[in-house]
Amino acid sequence: MEMSFSKWNAGNIRAVLSPRGAFNCLQQLTHEQKRRGVVAPTAGNHGIGLSYAANILGVPAHIFLPENCDPMTIEVLKSLKANISLFPDIETARIEALKSAETENLSFISAYNEKGMITGGGSIGLEILQELSDVDIVVVCVGGGGLISGIASVLKANNPSIEIWGAQTENSPTFVRWFEARKIIPVTLKPSIAPGLSGIIEPETMTFPIIRDHVDKMIAVSEDDLVEGMRFMMKHHQQVVEPSGIAAVSAIMRKANTFPKKKIAVIVTGRNVSYTEFSSLVN
Amino acid sequence: MEMSFSKWNAGNIRAVLSPRGAFNCLQQLTHEQKRRGVVAPTAGNHGIGLSYAANILGVPAHIFLPENCDPMTIEVLKSLKANISLFPDIETARIEALKSAETENLSFISAYNEKGMITGGGSIGLEILQELSDVDIVVVCVGGGGLISGIASVLKANNPSIEIWGAQTENSPTFVRWFEARKIIPVTLKPSIAPGLSGIIEPETMTFPIIRDHVDKMIAVSEDDLVEGMRFMMKHHQQVVEPSGIAAVSAIMRKANTFPKKKIAVIVTGRNVSYTEFSSLVN
Repeated sequence: MEMSFSKWNAGNIRAVLSPRGAFNCLQQLTHEQKRRGVVAPTAGNHGIGLSYAANILGVPAHIFLPENCDPMTIEVLKSLKANISLFPDIETARIEALKSAETENLSFISAYNEKGMITGGGSIGLEILQELSDVDIVVVCVGGGGLISGIASVLKANNPSIEIWGAQTENSPTFVRWFEARKIIPVTLKPSIAPGLSGIIEPETMTFPIIRDHVDKMIAVSEDDLVEGMRFMMKHHQQVVEPSGIAAVSAIMRKANTFPKKKIAVIVTGRNVSYTEFSSLVN
Repeated sequence: MEMSFSKWNAGNIRAVLSPRGAFNCLQQLTHEQKRRGVVAPTAGNHGIGLSYAANILGVPAHIFLPENCDPMTIEVLKSLKANISLFPDIETARIEALKSAETENLSFISAYNEKGMITGGGSIGLEILQELSDVDIVVVCVGGGGLISGIASVLKANNPSIEIWGAQTENSPTFVRWFEARKIIPVTLKPSIAPGLSGIIEPETMTFPIIRDHVDKMIAVSEDDLVEGMRFMMKHHQQVVEPSGIAAVSAIMRKANTFPKKKIAVIVTGRNVSYTEFSSLVN
């Protein structure tokens, strides 16, 4: 592979509106479920996508977040009229969201363990087939694995020779370890600058068998790799990318000299980072 | 108008590949003219667009720049295989480019006083009509006036009720003053952080009668307004915009509370600024 990122124009970077999965999920709810509303735990972007779609469709959205999320996320969620609740960490937010779904009779929308999210994300696979049908490798960031599950399902069904690579952080390498072991095993988690790719993954998630069977490679990237990726995208594309959205870029930068010339699509998944936070990481 | 910029997604910001005018000009050259090549003076972006198109079409491009241009511009031009010459200032570059066209038998491509550039830029007007036909106001940055001439010609011919506003810097307000006076008058120029909107405009330029007759308002923005606009785009859209590309945003921010609710399209024209330069301006 050559580093064939265009170094000067953003024309080959597609702005992919994120709430594909959220719209997909909400549109499958009954009228009564829509009226009652949805609840979701999130490090940020799932909440933004869901609130965006919910706001358009007039569905009340209850978003449960860790207290240390980027302040920009809160600001964005407020502008989207979400009901926001903060918790000490993402795992507590998840448990409380499940309780709230039960007691308040809300629809719980997981960011990844949810068919609607997976198939919504899969629409990116369809667009890759339409616009870049000769692609050799597609690289996707992995948190809970919803996006890569959708993209891998679509691409492998249509053209099994396309390789799908996942990128996760070394600090929160759940799918890297499970993928190597071919089964669910205990994984040690450390904090990461990429909260959207971090945290406990439910062992029963439907995304694991999909990733195990349809992804070709899982790559772990370091915190430094994430920052290097962010610097690359700023320096050569003048694009702000958040840490949780950059792992696929970081993975491909590490591997750039280790395999022959290939056509590679790298999915970049988010710019929701405040400039303060961004510049403190990149400088 | 409400400040209806979406505050969180880039989905409603269109990445407009810049070399529309350049492709248009080059494709109108004869085979022999293409073989000999083109020469252009530029503060940066015209050179990038022209070199991009020339590189694809196999036309030699000679780009004449002021020495104080952004280092990133040089790097980008080199990657596009342009022949680069540096001069003390943009006006010297312009005079030398004209000489070089004469002595070397190259085609001189002005960034603005050139039908091919104007009609190429006009294709943005066609896209606005296709995708945003109910727009009330279109705001465009003005340097030599090529882009706004193209956009205004297309929009006014199709729907005269669409207002066209131009934004130029207070420090280099040539078209603001000519527009007020309805004729060519002497204008005092000062340096600006927006070189792409600055410098001497040829009094005989074909863009002046077009702007005089088809633009509804010319707005001068201060250097501080440019920086405020850049901050706004970074804070709310996580988009790096160069000073020369932001004037239309700055103009609309100043006017945001002074007129009723309207649908406004703001043309943002460039992200070719190094991160070092960008952060020194914004911080």
